[in-house]
Amino acid sequence: MIHVTVLYPNDSGAMFDMNYYTSKHLPMVRAKCGPACRSTMAELGVAGGEPGSKAPYIAIGRLVFDSLEAFQKSFGPHAREILADVPNYTNTRPVVQIGEVKS
Amino acid sequence: MIHVTVLYPNDSGAMFDMNYYTSKHLPMVRAKCGPACRSTMAELGVAGGEPGSKAPYIAIGRLVFDSLEAFQKSFGPHAREILADVPNYTNTRPVVQIGEVKS
Repeated sequence: MIHVTVLYPNDSGAMFDMNYYTSKHLPMVRAKCGPACRSTMAELGVAGGEPGSKAPYIAIGRLVFDSLEAFQKSFGPHAREILADVPNYTNTRPVVQIGEVKS
Repeated sequence: MIHVTVLYPNDSGAMFDMNYYTSKHLPMVRAKCGPACRSTMAELGVAGGEPGSKAPYIAIGRLVFDSLEAFQKSFGPHAREILADVPNYTNTRPVVQIGEVKS
């Protein structure tokens, strides 16, 4: 299983519209990718690890696929359109991590 | 639901022993936190978002709790012992994010 984790840095002035993200963006990603996208998840940054510290990421999104190939085949053809939607919910520049689930 | 996401930066020279992490560290965390820790997950960084780029994090771990309070109450008393185990599987300095699951 592959996680595509999208991390939105919590820089000064960072904005993130979680309502748009969960009600418009993620459903659009699922619709474009079809059943290859097994699930999606969104979380809002609350805190960092040190007491009183702010979350390093204002939000994190995750897309789950069976394999890297399944991600590339289903997401790739729509990448441009999906990425064009990002400025509609955030002014941050996301960091993307592709990872293989081990447990 | 709360995710405690632990991100291990993929710096030059970074090492991460996934076998130790999944067979020793995470079971120890679950044992210390008890049922308050709903689940754990580990993933190995495979790639970044740009073609040919390396994963920003060599590994990501995640602990799931019902609430921030449940995390603090169950993890807090064992934090020192849990953190003392980190050098047994990595030479990196992890970034910790606490987030609230929204969807």
